[in-house]
Amino acid sequence: MARYEVILAYDGSGFQGSQRQTRIRTVQGELETALRNLGWKGTSVIMAGRTDAGVHAQGQVAAFDLEWAHADARLLKALNAELPADVAVRSLRVASADFHPRFDATSRRYRYKLFCEPIRDPLRERFAWRVWPEVNAKALLEIAGLFIGAHDFAAFGSPTTPKRTTVRTVTKSEWQQRPNGEWQFEVEADAFLYRMVRRLVFVQVFVAHGKCRAEEVQIALRKQAKLRSGLAPAHGLTLVEVTYGSQ
Amino acid sequence: MARYEVILAYDGSGFQGSQRQTRIRTVQGELETALRNLGWKGTSVIMAGRTDAGVHAQGQVAAFDLEWAHADARLLKALNAELPADVAVRSLRVASADFHPRFDATSRRYRYKLFCEPIRDPLRERFAWRVWPEVNAKALLEIAGLFIGAHDFAAFGSPTTPKRTTVRTVTKSEWQQRPNGEWQFEVEADAFLYRMVRRLVFVQVFVAHGKCRAEEVQIALRKQAKLRSGLAPAHGLTLVEVTYGSQ
Repeated sequence: MARYEVILAYDGSGFQGSQRQTRIRTVQGELETALRNLGWKGTSVIMAGRTDAGVHAQGQVAAFDLEWAHADARLLKALNAELPADVAVRSLRVASADFHPRFDATSRRYRYKLFCEPIRDPLRERFAWRVWPEVNAKALLEIAGLFIGAHDFAAFGSPTTPKRTTVRTVTKSEWQQRPNGEWQFEVEADAFLYRMVRRLVFVQVFVAHGKCRAEEVQIALRKQAKLRSGLAPAHGLTLVEVTYGSQ
Repeated sequence: MARYEVILAYDGSGFQGSQRQTRIRTVQGELETALRNLGWKGTSVIMAGRTDAGVHAQGQVAAFDLEWAHADARLLKALNAELPADVAVRSLRVASADFHPRFDATSRRYRYKLFCEPIRDPLRERFAWRVWPEVNAKALLEIAGLFIGAHDFAAFGSPTTPKRTTVRTVTKSEWQQRPNGEWQFEVEADAFLYRMVRRLVFVQVFVAHGKCRAEEVQIALRKQAKLRSGLAPAHGLTLVEVTYGSQ
């Protein structure tokens, strides 16, 4: 028996999130079904983090204990043959017996994509949020920096476990402009509050549309006061990477 | 009553092609349903070209006659509100009464995307063909030029109407290498034979994998002899643009 660590990629469009729920299609459920078809007797795999319905992943991490007599490469192939087309194991390795993808994680990185366009675009909207009118580039590039550092993000989400701290340390928060009206937000932190990235994106677009001043965001960060804002849609968001310190 | 020309974009994954067929979901069927909901009394819209099941479009062209009392911009909005999420009207204008999107077209441009990767990648495979082993870059860059000019492409497809000429004039045929193992093939011609682009892509990858020599492709082009080859999957292909001469 060994503990395996796998990196998962999925197109979140067809999933009701990452965590197993009865009679609902989830990434965890699909992974467990695939494992069971390979003789796995466990009851639950462990996921690094929860992603909401519709959120994509390039680097979700999961772990499970399995008796496997063959090479690791063969397990990776077998899992990908069992898994449906919208989820795949991108890599696999044997981890230490006490490896825990969530508790051992030292940081998470997300990417949010949007594009500014007045008319629907079915070829781009699966993986990006369509925003109109155009965002103010200067405002967007400036505001992202506000979130860097250790702040109480209570105004931007709730803790996954009630009453726990809402302080998070953001180490990267940056917009990049790309061709065709496209924008990409990269954000990294030790951990995130529930729906925090989607709230951060929404409030920044709000500012870039002139509907809210950067100072109000600053005040919300300092005083943990709720902001009149909203939630950017799930389909623009991708969990890019989960990082582990030296193990 | 006026004849309208619309440019359509669609994610082909959920469609059984572009042309209407009874009880099957097609782009033409969806457009006709949307039009009917806006009071259209016609029996059939005209499409510039047929795209197979799974093929995407950025610039498919369609035409229809409609009595519309309001501004064009309002018709575009109304159509996009009626159409499902995977198809959209990207632009709309009044054309001349005898405009025919297929017969009047002077050229078509397609794009085919692939990426070289040993492991499945759900975030990229919706719009690109995963190819492994890696292609020989030099071979791929070189072979595309063979197709430029007027050739009898009988070895690479069949005419859409039986017994018609299989001579086509290719004005662009070019591979571009991109980051992350990605490749993009752009091809433009006055018209294409049935499944011609997917056959051209497959045979080029065949050559780039060392399974067929460039000379064999050249001979097939000259003698119209069939090639031992295949068909690249539909989901990598996008109809980019249909061009019309001075009207």
